Amino acid sequence: MQSVPAQHSNVNKLLYGVAYYDEYMPAERLEKDIKMMKEAGINVVRIAESTWSTVEPQDGVFDFTHIDRALNAMHKAGIKVIIGTPTYAVPTWLVHKYPDVLAITPQGKNQYGPRQNMDISNNNFRFHAERVIRKIMEHVKDHPAIIGYQLDNETKAYNTAGPEVQKRFVEYMKAKFVSLDSINRAFGLDYWSNRINSWEDFPSMVSSINASQTSEFAKFQRKMVTDYLAWQAAIVTEYKHPEQFLTQNFDFDWKGFSYGIQTEVDHFAASKALDIAGVDIYHPTQDALTGLEISFGGDVARSMKAGKNYLVLETEAQGFPEWVPYPGQLRLQAFSHLASGANMVEYWHWHSIHNSAETYWKGLLSHDFEPNPTYDEAKTIGKDFQRLSSYLLNLTKRNEVAILFSNEAMSAYNSFRPGRLSYNDVLRQMYDALYKINVGVDFVDPTSTHIEKYKILVVPALYAAPDTLLERLNRYVKNGGRIVYSFKSGFSDQNVKVRTCVQPGIISEACGINYSQFTVPQNVSLKDDPFLVGSGNNNVNTWMELITPTTAKVLAYYDHPVWGKYAAITQNSYGKGTATYIGCATSNQVIEKILANEVKNAGLWGEAQKLYFPVITKDGLNERGKTIRYLFNYSSKPVSVLYTFENGRELLSDKAVNKNNMLEIDSWGLKIIEEQ
Amino acid sequence: MQSVPAQHSNVNKLLYGVAYYDEYMPAERLEKDIKMMKEAGINVVRIAESTWSTVEPQDGVFDFTHIDRALNAMHKAGIKVIIGTPTYAVPTWLVHKYPDVLAITPQGKNQYGPRQNMDISNNNFRFHAERVIRKIMEHVKDHPAIIGYQLDNETKAYNTAGPEVQKRFVEYMKAKFVSLDSINRAFGLDYWSNRINSWEDFPSMVSSINASQTSEFAKFQRKMVTDYLAWQAAIVTEYKHPEQFLTQNFDFDWKGFSYGIQTEVDHFAASKALDIAGVDIYHPTQDALTGLEISFGGDVARSMKAGKNYLVLETEAQGFPEWVPYPGQLRLQAFSHLASGANMVEYWHWHSIHNSAETYWKGLLSHDFEPNPTYDEAKTIGKDFQRLSSYLLNLTKRNEVAILFSNEAMSAYNSFRPGRLSYNDVLRQMYDALYKINVGVDFVDPTSTHIEKYKILVVPALYAAPDTLLERLNRYVKNGGRIVYSFKSGFSDQNVKVRTCVQPGIISEACGINYSQFTVPQNVSLKDDPFLVGSGNNNVNTWMELITPTTAKVLAYYDHPVWGKYAAITQNSYGKGTATYIGCATSNQVIEKILANEVKNAGLWGEAQKLYFPVITKDGLNERGKTIRYLFNYSSKPVSVLYTFENGRELLSDKAVNKNNMLEIDSWGLKIIEEQ
Amino acid sequence: MQSVPAQHSNVNKLLYGVAYYDEYMPAERLEKDIKMMKEAGINVVRIAESTWSTVEPQDGVFDFTHIDRALNAMHKAGIKVIIGTPTYAVPTWLVHKYPDVLAITPQGKNQYGPRQNMDISNNNFRFHAERVIRKIMEHVKDHPAIIGYQLDNETKAYNTAGPEVQKRFVEYMKAKFVSLDSINRAFGLDYWSNRINSWEDFPSMVSSINASQTSEFAKFQRKMVTDYLAWQAAIVTEYKHPEQFLTQNFDFDWKGFSYGIQTEVDHFAASKALDIAGVDIYHPTQDALTGLEISFGGDVARSMKAGKNYLVLETEAQGFPEWVPYPGQLRLQAFSHLASGANMVEYWHWHSIHNSAETYWKGLLSHDFEPNPTYDEAKTIGKDFQRLSSYLLNLTKRNEVAILFSNEAMSAYNSFRPGRLSYNDVLRQMYDALYKINVGVDFVDPTSTHIEKYKILVVPALYAAPDTLLERLNRYVKNGGRIVYSFKSGFSDQNVKVRTCVQPGIISEACGINYSQFTVPQNVSLKDDPFLVGSGNNNVNTWMELITPTTAKVLAYYDHPVWGKYAAITQNSYGKGTATYIGCATSNQVIEKILANEVKNAGLWGEAQKLYFPVITKDGLNERGKTIRYLFNYSSKPVSVLYTFENGRELLSDKAVNKNNMLEIDSWGLKIIEEQ
Repeated sequence: MQSVPAQHSNVNKLLYGVAYYDEYMPAERLEKDIKMMKEAGINVVRIAESTWSTVEPQDGVFDFTHIDRALNAMHKAGIKVIIGTPTYAVPTWLVHKYPDVLAITPQGKNQYGPRQNMDISNNNFRFHAERVIRKIMEHVKDHPAIIGYQLDNETKAYNTAGPEVQKRFVEYMKAKFVSLDSINRAFGLDYWSNRINSWEDFPSMVSSINASQTSEFAKFQRKMVTDYLAWQAAIVTEYKHPEQFLTQNFDFDWKGFSYGIQTEVDHFAASKALDIAGVDIYHPTQDALTGLEISFGGDVARSMKAGKNYLVLETEAQGFPEWVPYPGQLRLQAFSHLASGANMVEYWHWHSIHNSAETYWKGLLSHDFEPNPTYDEAKTIGKDFQRLSSYLLNLTKRNEVAILFSNEAMSAYNSFRPGRLSYNDVLRQMYDALYKINVGVDFVDPTSTHIEKYKILVVPALYAAPDTLLERLNRYVKNGGRIVYSFKSGFSDQNVKVRTCVQPGIISEACGINYSQFTVPQNVSLKDDPFLVGSGNNNVNTWMELITPTTAKVLAYYDHPVWGKYAAITQNSYGKGTATYIGCATSNQVIEKILANEVKNAGLWGEAQKLYFPVITKDGLNERGKTIRYLFNYSSKPVSVLYTFENGRELLSDKAVNKNNMLEIDSWGLKIIEEQ
Repeated sequence: MQSVPAQHSNVNKLLYGVAYYDEYMPAERLEKDIKMMKEAGINVVRIAESTWSTVEPQDGVFDFTHIDRALNAMHKAGIKVIIGTPTYAVPTWLVHKYPDVLAITPQGKNQYGPRQNMDISNNNFRFHAERVIRKIMEHVKDHPAIIGYQLDNETKAYNTAGPEVQKRFVEYMKAKFVSLDSINRAFGLDYWSNRINSWEDFPSMVSSINASQTSEFAKFQRKMVTDYLAWQAAIVTEYKHPEQFLTQNFDFDWKGFSYGIQTEVDHFAASKALDIAGVDIYHPTQDALTGLEISFGGDVARSMKAGKNYLVLETEAQGFPEWVPYPGQLRLQAFSHLASGANMVEYWHWHSIHNSAETYWKGLLSHDFEPNPTYDEAKTIGKDFQRLSSYLLNLTKRNEVAILFSNEAMSAYNSFRPGRLSYNDVLRQMYDALYKINVGVDFVDPTSTHIEKYKILVVPALYAAPDTLLERLNRYVKNGGRIVYSFKSGFSDQNVKVRTCVQPGIISEACGINYSQFTVPQNVSLKDDPFLVGSGNNNVNTWMELITPTTAKVLAYYDHPVWGKYAAITQNSYGKGTATYIGCATSNQVIEKILANEVKNAGLWGEAQKLYFPVITKDGLNERGKTIRYLFNYSSKPVSVLYTFENGRELLSDKAVNKNNMLEIDSWGLKIIEEQ
Repeated sequence: MQSVPAQHSNVNKLLYGVAYYDEYMPAERLEKDIKMMKEAGINVVRIAESTWSTVEPQDGVFDFTHIDRALNAMHKAGIKVIIGTPTYAVPTWLVHKYPDVLAITPQGKNQYGPRQNMDISNNNFRFHAERVIRKIMEHVKDHPAIIGYQLDNETKAYNTAGPEVQKRFVEYMKAKFVSLDSINRAFGLDYWSNRINSWEDFPSMVSSINASQTSEFAKFQRKMVTDYLAWQAAIVTEYKHPEQFLTQNFDFDWKGFSYGIQTEVDHFAASKALDIAGVDIYHPTQDALTGLEISFGGDVARSMKAGKNYLVLETEAQGFPEWVPYPGQLRLQAFSHLASGANMVEYWHWHSIHNSAETYWKGLLSHDFEPNPTYDEAKTIGKDFQRLSSYLLNLTKRNEVAILFSNEAMSAYNSFRPGRLSYNDVLRQMYDALYKINVGVDFVDPTSTHIEKYKILVVPALYAAPDTLLERLNRYVKNGGRIVYSFKSGFSDQNVKVRTCVQPGIISEACGINYSQFTVPQNVSLKDDPFLVGSGNNNVNTWMELITPTTAKVLAYYDHPVWGKYAAITQNSYGKGTATYIGCATSNQVIEKILANEVKNAGLWGEAQKLYFPVITKDGLNERGKTIRYLFNYSSKPVSVLYTFENGRELLSDKAVNKNNMLEIDSWGLKIIEEQ
């Protein structure tokens, strides 16, 4: 599909930024910091997020000193400012006066100390949050340094589940299901006497053993986030100038780094209140730097607003001690963000913090505020961003492959996850395979209206879905689309009730298969190594469905004395399209082969596929209508790459590059070619 | 001893059943289900257990629709019905009105959601439980389909330990010990100032660090279960017809499957209120199917009522995904239950449940209600049960070996367990060895009056026991019995006070040994591999007592530079009998050799012992006074077995079998011979 | 430095003791026990500690029966008595009447059962504790058997953190910091809106995410212990006779045994209220006996009162089952205590306890009260103590090497510990290396006034320290001292605020290095194996600082493609001294080589260093002014040792030993030479 570039009037150049906290400084630093920022090409800072206790030191007493200092000094230096509302960390006085602002979670009442400990739906929280936002907005709204606003930060519902939240949940359930009988039926509550026969009896979901209930509650909690951000957006919008943008800093499912689709937020729904999508992306570096998370997080962020460019509101500079970047890596990372469609790369944070929880999450500067190798490398990035802004800004990406994810399916699947295999594990295995073969990917969810535009749809673990969605997917295939499903797709309906028909339910038709039994593989592999991945990569693990094809062709049978008669992986022609079904968990190599074959079958195997990870290529159209082609070397060894794309000019070196030239790319290095 | 068969007038044929929940059906299924049941030979269903919220949707409002539907339809089809009282899962309205029905445990107040979360001694719970039971009984009591009643389900005290329970516990202690002084002395409460000098000061046992206290509290909790079941039994008995039986579904210590003696219930005491013992038995299958749990659970169940036949009220059909049976296994399992003395095999459950906690605990049917390989195999079982009922019903078992277990010893031992070795681990190692050498076993406990009838008594970890029991065991040996004790037997008295004499206390006399030190073995084995098990199986682990024989013969010394002078395993002639003492934890192979030697020494080594696991044989007398001999192949390879038992007729094939014939048994196959 | 011997008038011979509880006896034992004690040379018992519930069975009702029985019987037998105040385990009635005596910790309200569950600052606890102490003191004070008093036992603050403690903490903070502004600044509380703008808003520290706060709270809790012991000391001092001593039984950081510096007590501060330092030391035995914990615990105990001799108030006899000593080990242990400066070795406990938590923590006697091999060995120790008392009592130790530890640095370091490497791990690695090369060590802390007397100062992980301390250490080097720092030293100030200058901050000057980045090593070793430890021991693990030398000599570079340009270990001449900086975690072998080199460089490499673990030598001056030299063989093999010290007499055998004699030492054996 063709993406629509961000085109936000206020994002008219590549933004290179840092989060900056005048509040946290152990000594006067502002002028010195700005001088060093300018030297590094920093042209934007994010301020004020999480600083409620300095902005409003006592109930109703406001102090804008730090905001004013930063705004004025930045403006003077020509550095733009994003103002963050300060609401994701509550001040001591608020908790002291209104203890109920702290969320009650399944683990009990939260205690003061950490950020993100409040109930975002609490009236006392909302009253004071609104007041402090309005006060800040009234104060700053006409300041010329401000290009946009960030609402809150990494917002979630933080598992808030106390009595007040329960009341709202019951109201939500009344509105959605109308009668208890329909809930009892849809959720199967007769089981273990969980039936609810009166609204007053509605039990807390906290200790529910029913995944229909817990998944609905998770959905309700995601809706709380959507509603909360829309509420903040409405407030800020009353004050902000039209050319100033609204964004949020969404984060990802965290596995020690930005790993997968966020389970607690419906990014597509929540981002509707925003002008520009914003995300934070954190990832391992050193020998473990692959670019995967940058690409994944970027593809999700870009897809939030259907292809519009996005902001990387936070990413690591030095980060955790184990992430201190090798020479070249900070550059490689920065341009990798741009290659996925980012218009801003902003580090969290400028300087390393001298006290508290994130002392060892290091910024661009160490605690000593002196230049260091990471800062020195940032200086080269800042210069290149400035020089190449007009070539690289507002990249338009065109992808023919999309991954269909679903927050609902994720909640449901994870309630019954086989072994340790999470929804995001299944999704990432498919995503990572496409990344390695240099196939660009968009993300769609069940609300997306443009699903049908893609040539290939990759569908991990679509465990819970309404009939309408599955029928739509069948139609998509019938009309010529290609789908690759993982196991467990189609298994239950939108209420996480297992379908009462033969599995995989509605999609059986397009897939040409059925099964009614499944088991956990022990010493099972794929018969005769059908994907030629070698015996070490040919195993089946964690989950296997015992599939019988009806019209499908079998791509792989199980190799096992008992289960050998069942199919593991199948492919079916249905109408003008093809549905591939992967009925088991297997290796990265097998998944990659299946997806590569589908890319070939779809006629999408092109020049980019002649390259393979660690050589990664990304491309898009720039505002001049030219193709920008990035070539990245995600390895510690220099590589020689045969350049088979169009003739063009390498922008970093400003040298011509012609088709079939050999390009030498340094370890952790990159090339950027504007094709003619 | 000679078992007394169940002979309950209502169990006059082999019962093949399923748990059935009309309540849980996502659509009308009753007639279709009954048709499929009949095709599978299902002749009994259990209904209504756990369905309180549908039977009594609101306080005092009763609705017997589902019970009536099931009773009438089953009756029409000639299928018998067991009614379960619905009390093991409480409805939402009860918790809403009477929050104190939820138990307070050491982890705090339970929350609504799971089953088995209530305080079974709570007055509000008892009042409403009694009322719903009476209402059901009044309604169904004369229905001709009913053959019996199940009280509650898998009942335990669920760790209830709140203030009300504490009050009852203090009353129990007053009644049992009369004076605080006797408690202080018996429990050693002077230690760490735990002395109780006034009944009002009696502290909660929840955080006691005194195993005398915690073991007594565990005993009190087991008594709660016994009392609760007797209370339900009395209620149901007011209504039930004399030929209808009363049973309970006891379960076992759970280790992912039915593993050992139930720690929370005194099965022998609790089953006194019942007519027939009932159990659930769940176990791994596929390559891990051994028959061990079927045999173990069956032997315990049969022993509950001193040899009477029992009901398997629940066992798996498909079960967990990893337990989907291989072809042949469902049959092998069903007949294995019969071979241990079961008169009924009932699956939990008919159909797989579409919502909630047990979605992946699959029944005979999958979620699609269609025939599947497991159901198809059940059809053959149903036919064979029907055809062979008169040969196989009411099997009388005669065993010469018994295992003496003790709930009291278990609580006490587990309070001080060495390493990770639980009481059931010690017991199962001994049980499993006997199983593998085809020695049939009964279970006895300290209340059993017929202990003396056995030729061999196997006594695992009899850690806490009164003088009277140990003196009785000494007398048993003196009179010609053979005992095999494990380590830690005899160590403390019934109050878990370590005996102040030389160890192993009173049984030193029969064992002819003493010790006062023990340690944890490191690089210790049995000297010179006395049991010829090979170096890999000759190690001592986890626990070793430094034994000096007085009159005993040493079967094994430790091999260790320092501990080498001490005995590990001894045997002593005492009176007309022999006491063997195993003073350390060691391998399965060593335990098996010791027990095999004892079987030989007792003159019990017979034809059955020519077979060895995976070939298992079980036998008993049928009602015609003939020996029924089962031969099972618990392996994936067909086996040829030299049949050295009496001439007879193989019932499945209806062919003659003569002594010294070779029998071919399929993988996971079986033979059933009625000897002449 | 020259130690000052204890010289307490009441410790005029080697004390060999046991803890004795007449209260716990299952039957009358007193006379029999005393007879066996006398046979074993026991000349002191500790009684009454933890027996509150027998001394005061009801509120205000006192019963001194057990104390009187023990005092009188012991006195008659010539056995001295140490009276322990009974306050570390509270009676049931106290908790029943005053539930607030139980501490509220971060895990919630404590429950009755275990010892050490109270809030030591609680008024109700203090009132009743004072009363029972006064009653006991009034009753016993003139009894001639008593040589001293032990205050409480293993006292800590037990994480008490409830509202009352919080109030006291806020008062403490007011007194220390005066203004909230100074706290906000010092602790960096602007971060995440943690700023406190009013004393009423001061949040609980329980869920703080700020290590400045949590470290200060830990310090406050340590102060509670110091204050509490001083309070008890003042009470007891009102009654006790001048020649009777006051002591406490301090314990160590516990890792299944006495492992390191106690995190919850400031031993140096708390021991100021005492006459004699007392400790308990527990350690593995059998093949794992090394003497390390005896030496470590002894060196800390001796250092508490700047070199004065100390009492081992508790150590194991049989101990845990896995600690039953091999023949010889109990002797080796006893004399090892003396060799570190102990004047008493007292076992916990005389007999093994028949109920409750410590049933398997065995005393000198087993539960059967009979002689056993461990008791038999104790008899030889008692005899030798008696015979050699005048040679071995009041040993004066002279050490040239000290380890500087800091409770403040420990709390702070552990808040940010890299990987699993605790402060004590870093400290013990350095201590253990010195032990193995037979270098005697004292301990100093930042309050010590005699730091400058040592030739070498070993400084593990001095993570948090005020400027004054670091400047003092720089001066120490400048004046000729030798320091060996580990990584992370100097990093933050006394408020755990990371220093804003180039690292390692103030000590950069003496160390001649700086760094601003650090990372976690992956596949990193020391370049070219500079310490010749072999490739298996040359790795860098867990933490590495990227050091650039300014004036320092590089002892080791990292071996890594990227980090290879940075120094790992450096040494700098500064003034007349030398500062060595170890910028990474590495192997025991490397640490030992670095410290051995420093010992050589300091001219301290002597005859003792010709011996190496498992041959350990310790020495000191006895009261006759002669050198007592201990030689220990910590192994299961006899060793031949070339004796290169001065001529003398071996005291155990009473034989002459001359320089260059070969000495044969048994497995787990020892020699004691009084040099001429």
